[in-house]
Amino acid sequence: MVAWKNMDTLKAYQAMAEKKTDVNLKEVLSGDAGAERVAKYCVPMAEGLAYNFAAKKVDDGILEDLAAFAKEAQLTEKFAELAGGAVINTGENRLVLHHLTRGQLCGPVVADGTDKRAFYETQQKNIAEFTKKVHAGEITNAAGEKFTTVVQIGIGGSDLGPRAVYLALENWARANGTLKMEARFISNVDPDDAAAVLNTTDVAHAIFVLVSKSGTTLETLTNESFVKDALEKAGLDPSRHMIAVTSETSPLAKNSGYLAAFFMDDYIGGRYSSTSAVGGAVLSLAFGPEVFAAFLEGAAAEDKLAMNENLLENPAMLDALIGVYERNILGYGSTAVLPYSQALSRFPAHLQQADMESNGKSVNRFGEPVSYRTGPLLFGEPGTNGQHSFYQLLHQGTDIIPLQFVGFKESQFDKDVVIQGSTSQKKLCANVVAQIIAFACGKDDENNNKYFAGGRPSSIIIGKKLTPQALGALLSHFENKIMFQGFAWNLNSFDQEGVQLGKVLAKRVLAHETDGALKAFSDLFEI
Amino acid sequence: MVAWKNMDTLKAYQAMAEKKTDVNLKEVLSGDAGAERVAKYCVPMAEGLAYNFAAKKVDDGILEDLAAFAKEAQLTEKFAELAGGAVINTGENRLVLHHLTRGQLCGPVVADGTDKRAFYETQQKNIAEFTKKVHAGEITNAAGEKFTTVVQIGIGGSDLGPRAVYLALENWARANGTLKMEARFISNVDPDDAAAVLNTTDVAHAIFVLVSKSGTTLETLTNESFVKDALEKAGLDPSRHMIAVTSETSPLAKNSGYLAAFFMDDYIGGRYSSTSAVGGAVLSLAFGPEVFAAFLEGAAAEDKLAMNENLLENPAMLDALIGVYERNILGYGSTAVLPYSQALSRFPAHLQQADMESNGKSVNRFGEPVSYRTGPLLFGEPGTNGQHSFYQLLHQGTDIIPLQFVGFKESQFDKDVVIQGSTSQKKLCANVVAQIIAFACGKDDENNNKYFAGGRPSSIIIGKKLTPQALGALLSHFENKIMFQGFAWNLNSFDQEGVQLGKVLAKRVLAHETDGALKAFSDLFEI
Repeated sequence: MVAWKNMDTLKAYQAMAEKKTDVNLKEVLSGDAGAERVAKYCVPMAEGLAYNFAAKKVDDGILEDLAAFAKEAQLTEKFAELAGGAVINTGENRLVLHHLTRGQLCGPVVADGTDKRAFYETQQKNIAEFTKKVHAGEITNAAGEKFTTVVQIGIGGSDLGPRAVYLALENWARANGTLKMEARFISNVDPDDAAAVLNTTDVAHAIFVLVSKSGTTLETLTNESFVKDALEKAGLDPSRHMIAVTSETSPLAKNSGYLAAFFMDDYIGGRYSSTSAVGGAVLSLAFGPEVFAAFLEGAAAEDKLAMNENLLENPAMLDALIGVYERNILGYGSTAVLPYSQALSRFPAHLQQADMESNGKSVNRFGEPVSYRTGPLLFGEPGTNGQHSFYQLLHQGTDIIPLQFVGFKESQFDKDVVIQGSTSQKKLCANVVAQIIAFACGKDDENNNKYFAGGRPSSIIIGKKLTPQALGALLSHFENKIMFQGFAWNLNSFDQEGVQLGKVLAKRVLAHETDGALKAFSDLFEI
Repeated sequence: MVAWKNMDTLKAYQAMAEKKTDVNLKEVLSGDAGAERVAKYCVPMAEGLAYNFAAKKVDDGILEDLAAFAKEAQLTEKFAELAGGAVINTGENRLVLHHLTRGQLCGPVVADGTDKRAFYETQQKNIAEFTKKVHAGEITNAAGEKFTTVVQIGIGGSDLGPRAVYLALENWARANGTLKMEARFISNVDPDDAAAVLNTTDVAHAIFVLVSKSGTTLETLTNESFVKDALEKAGLDPSRHMIAVTSETSPLAKNSGYLAAFFMDDYIGGRYSSTSAVGGAVLSLAFGPEVFAAFLEGAAAEDKLAMNENLLENPAMLDALIGVYERNILGYGSTAVLPYSQALSRFPAHLQQADMESNGKSVNRFGEPVSYRTGPLLFGEPGTNGQHSFYQLLHQGTDIIPLQFVGFKESQFDKDVVIQGSTSQKKLCANVVAQIIAFACGKDDENNNKYFAGGRPSSIIIGKKLTPQALGALLSHFENKIMFQGFAWNLNSFDQEGVQLGKVLAKRVLAHETDGALKAFSDLFEI
């Protein structure tokens, strides 16, 4: 049996905290030894990706300490428990099974009398069959015309992940001739969000995917009404334009208001649902089920690496522990994810949810307050855009913010131009390489204003090209990294009680059951 | 004459730091006194907006201290110096004149033998005339057909601000029938960015705005070549499809490769350029010059308030000093901007540049290292989406992150639905109100997992509706807030030396003039 203990009670952690080694990046990256370090501090990932941590503040000694910590904290045993179907989400008394949507890491997981891998595969099969009929023109609008656009209605995990994945593969699909339908997304309860999407969508040829596990998410049901209203005003029958992704027990299941329903269950958390039916329906409709399957394949391959006990063969665990070292030993409070790929423009926003909602907690999995810092603030924008924006603070600000770069050797489209002797893609790659060294090594200058202290750590995930497989591996890496950090901090990374209070108070405001400051603020908005 | 001194040398700051008062938000917001506080701690802004700081950790005593600090630091005198044309950007020996693009706060500013207000007005007039001809079909493509889309090519300040403003007003313009042309943006050197935009743009009817002050920005020139290439391949003459926004001395000025050129100068920093020709050309083409003028009108009205010596009549200065109090006295390292308006989806990304590039510095305006923290990390996403994402950490994480909400009573489109007795817009407003109280006051619970400590400060800017005028006021507020913070920290908020090192190293990588770790990373990317 694994033992769930607070991080600061572990001997290996205490030893690291006492040493508090702060590696001098400029020193370790200089000369031939620096070049060797770049080659050595690099762990292969699935699908040809690699995790390079040469510019992180670790050395062989720290790596040994981190490995000892991983062992004492039983991180891979805990991962195996999760994969094997233990009740890891203690707060909500649930299994955590999103890995099963893309593969089976241990033996079969049976819950509620069902083999869960078979259940998720059935949903994928059902989605694939439905999707093929839509693409073939066998399922059409009432006028017998093909659907050309798919619109996802969902919020949080039903929006951010699928949207980030769609944007990541939209150009790849265009370039490969597999963009079957354009996808749009409606999420915000702000009525201008739905109105803007509907204003610029050919609703007569649109199929809407309503995503809500419970079937009761207020924002999503509100937006559904908004959409149904618009369809009716256009003389269309909403039930011919809508499908549902929900749980089998929700009011949206077996409901004649929908063309079809596809299912997830309570063991798939919203922020981990991109590889379930939540991502499956919209992505299969947009790209074809084969592309979605390739995405799952990449995630499954990367998941396997998360089972490796050897820290240097488990990139997600290594990335996680370097992050813990930065957060708790070096005291850095935030982290930036900086993809050098415009296709990943919304990937940081997805990770922001996945990470901050999972590990932004002050109590351990037993509900006891912890006395160390947990999940960091996570933010990011694509490079090179960020270079012309907030990088000033990253380079010369008064706080150190650890960085996570992502870059690819090739672009998704094969279109490029040569200016000043190099293609845009080479310039993009040259920029990310240059940034790693600029942040780590800095630059001396007699003019303090042009002085760069350096010592700003970064890692980089390098790939050949952002394909569906590579994207699946990338997503899995970060999901598993977050879980390993949750294990290290002894948190339940799978509930989100912190979002409840706002909901309760908002209902009270709408019911006019307020007094004091809450009423005063409500009055300012004339609610 | 004003005296530029480090913050920690000022008596008023030292006194505040010694007291280190940490206001208990739950206490001050409870009962009738809490309601009174909400009404009292509210400062009118221009265009019907209001800055409410009732849920910030200040009290009358702290406000007095902040006012004393503002006086000793001569903040409004410094602002007047800037507005009057002093060389405020000492690092680059430049004036800082973006306020003049929308009004004249002091006497005339003459530089390089020119009245600068007249210069900026001339540019606006020229843009307006050009724009009207485009809209009237007097300036067309070679086939004599009207242009229907405008595509901005620029990066950093030439992208983020204009893009945020365009998105903020796109729906408003649709609703009011003043959307003259759709706008698109190409920024990243990633070739997939330009390819994706061109793939989905009718280039035969598109007019491209090339924005580069120096005319030498590598990303922008690279993307220009990309676009010209695409135009030529489509059998079109690029010079019939492109205009330039640049400085009068740049290679892009008086160049037959462009239909027209509009000018800015060295006194307009990129991140403060939305109200100059940088924003003016694309926004006037998209919405009509009258809408752009209304946007400037709102900014000018808000600018006037920044001249007020009385802290409680100067919302930008008040907001700035509360931020300094949070950063330096209370020790909070980051801040979130959370607009409850989908139209403001990219406004936080613009502020991220404006703020972090301006004040993310470790040396004062004389190039001497400062011994206090300066600009915080700034990030944000629209609510209610954020509520279903990173708010978990904001509510229950181990760090306190101060918040800045923005909300409007009315939506931009007049389309809405009533669900469970309320419109979407009311739900949106109810949510932001609820969040303010949830963050500030928290909730007791025997179950620690459902316990909210509260004490998480927020302010809110409340408006009636997001119109061009209101948006102008909002932009001005934040620009001036950033400058007041720069004055308080004794920084030069107008240079960006921190972005140089990466550029230099990237050139070296592309020229293969590398060794050690830099070469090793370059090799990984096969550059």
